[in-house]
Amino acid sequence: MSKFLSEKFKDLEPYTPGEQPQDKKYVKLNTNESPFKPCPGVMKALSEEAVSQLYLYSDPTANKLVEAIAEYYTNYVKENGKNFVISKENVIVSNGSDEVLAFIFNAYTDKDKGMACPEIGYGFYPVFCSLYGVPFKSIKIRDDFSIDISAFKGISENITIANPNAQTGLYLSLNDIKTLLSENKDRIIVIDEAYCDFGGESASVLLDEYENLIVVGTLSKSRQLAGGRVGFAIASKEIIQDLNTIKYSFNPYNLNRLSILAGVEAMKDVDYFNKTRKVVMENREYLKEELKKLGFKVTDSKSNFILVSTPKMGGKELYLKLKERGVLVRFLSDELLKNWVRITIGSKEQLNVLLKEIKEILGA
Amino acid sequence: MSKFLSEKFKDLEPYTPGEQPQDKKYVKLNTNESPFKPCPGVMKALSEEAVSQLYLYSDPTANKLVEAIAEYYTNYVKENGKNFVISKENVIVSNGSDEVLAFIFNAYTDKDKGMACPEIGYGFYPVFCSLYGVPFKSIKIRDDFSIDISAFKGISENITIANPNAQTGLYLSLNDIKTLLSENKDRIIVIDEAYCDFGGESASVLLDEYENLIVVGTLSKSRQLAGGRVGFAIASKEIIQDLNTIKYSFNPYNLNRLSILAGVEAMKDVDYFNKTRKVVMENREYLKEELKKLGFKVTDSKSNFILVSTPKMGGKELYLKLKERGVLVRFLSDELLKNWVRITIGSKEQLNVLLKEIKEILGA
Repeated sequence: MSKFLSEKFKDLEPYTPGEQPQDKKYVKLNTNESPFKPCPGVMKALSEEAVSQLYLYSDPTANKLVEAIAEYYTNYVKENGKNFVISKENVIVSNGSDEVLAFIFNAYTDKDKGMACPEIGYGFYPVFCSLYGVPFKSIKIRDDFSIDISAFKGISENITIANPNAQTGLYLSLNDIKTLLSENKDRIIVIDEAYCDFGGESASVLLDEYENLIVVGTLSKSRQLAGGRVGFAIASKEIIQDLNTIKYSFNPYNLNRLSILAGVEAMKDVDYFNKTRKVVMENREYLKEELKKLGFKVTDSKSNFILVSTPKMGGKELYLKLKERGVLVRFLSDELLKNWVRITIGSKEQLNVLLKEIKEILGA
Repeated sequence: MSKFLSEKFKDLEPYTPGEQPQDKKYVKLNTNESPFKPCPGVMKALSEEAVSQLYLYSDPTANKLVEAIAEYYTNYVKENGKNFVISKENVIVSNGSDEVLAFIFNAYTDKDKGMACPEIGYGFYPVFCSLYGVPFKSIKIRDDFSIDISAFKGISENITIANPNAQTGLYLSLNDIKTLLSENKDRIIVIDEAYCDFGGESASVLLDEYENLIVVGTLSKSRQLAGGRVGFAIASKEIIQDLNTIKYSFNPYNLNRLSILAGVEAMKDVDYFNKTRKVVMENREYLKEELKKLGFKVTDSKSNFILVSTPKMGGKELYLKLKERGVLVRFLSDELLKNWVRITIGSKEQLNVLLKEIKEILGA
């Protein structure tokens, strides 16, 4: 820390992202990437011609990408029995979903109105609150890690919930989300759907009814673009205006040319999206069953990862033993999760390597 | 604006970036892009194989890019008679230089210590101050647009100076910068060198002497990667630590995989860098002379643009007339510049189209 740093940041504890080792090749099941390569359209769109255009600025409105996301979600709500249009004015894109989450936390919180989140969620939420110097309220969850929405009653904060949960994979029903939206009409409710495409239903179907709803998404998990850094938020036109005010006061050209191109293709190739997420969900159920056979407790995850625990050792020990053997899973430092590790649903081959190593570690 | 937006942002006026029209093809001389394509190494590095890896997260430390920038500047200071090493710990990279400028303004300002800048500079600086709710102090410049460093005497703010100036192209000598650094040792001095490669000397040669110096750079102008979004800052290890604390509390994976790869190549190909900036500087002097022949006032720019003014019409009128004819230049809304337009140094062909249209407009 330099002596120049503002007092307000003297105690700022940054987020620790999952390891991204650059040296050694691991079976990497720690940061919830897709085991699939980007869709064929991405490969085509990022042509030599496209690369040669990098000397020109990208479109700061990322118009084509915003359009593709609006179109996907308009179709989505229609297929789910609703009939309203999600237009370009309802969408903002960002440099990964972390950036738009940061904009949201900045836009709607201040010293008098912080953010409330379930005590287990995405570890970044309290960090955003520290960054902006606003209160973070941790809301108790049940012993089985499920979210008790009645615990949000009577609070005065905005609310952010990762759904499915970013650490447990548990899914909160849209009915519960509707209750939260109805009971907190004067505050923002953020539903972070990074993992929603693996078995959840998107809260975007509620956007016609609730002006306090923001749905956040990413192309990192179900659309194979973690390394392309594309996230987005969908909300009322007024909220998207707010977020654009922040964006244009922070970094107008926040998406590079190639990520915009890749994002458009990834949103448009619905077949590839469906095919790949189906495999991930099948692999998830396979891994759940296999680990249960080995005596593991396994959360009922609707995500592309599962949270697991063995009575034979703590989470950190299992994580370290697997790492030694070249398999990277995530140990989450939260006290409540000290007996658990989070495992990304990789390819069947990767999962079989994992299972083999776990059996050897446990002597099973 | 939504009714939910925090009071603190009710009056936030975002930055207006230069037009990036997506519809029509212009001779685009408004946002200081390079007229050259990225170096051959970029074309090679962004291979099909590299694109296929987009399903994996990027390296949040962007280690290879940080290394390439450190190496370039270590060589630079050596070639300029200094003998110290700029190491990886002295460098942070960002999603365009706007992002690292935003981090810097956030890290070192607060309600009691704002930022002072020359009244003409990069239009984003006051916006960052609004975003963070900190005082912006505008420092008078001379009638000829040159910066009078004695005007910074006795202020209590940090100081940010674009050098060369982002609107006039005028260059402030390292001697003047040394004076500022010496006279303000308890505050941060940011030298934003977006345009420095077109005739200025980088203040990086002073990093061994001044712990309050931050040098900011971008690969958008002299390294043909405007659409790749790569910026950086160089400073003491402690300052880089500060900025990493902010980055990891905001968006750890702030650079995508392909921009990291492209950035490494662009930093390493010093021949291409030298060859292309030489052409830009030659074209600049050519354009200066031609416009002077037409009665224009022209600033002594050391950038890849010039600021020009004709007695025959105001800046806005000239901008609009050129736009009508398919040539895009930048009219800067500042009252002091109402008679001027800023013109990017494009290719010789582009400049000749510009000159032809200007002659027709002026009836010369």
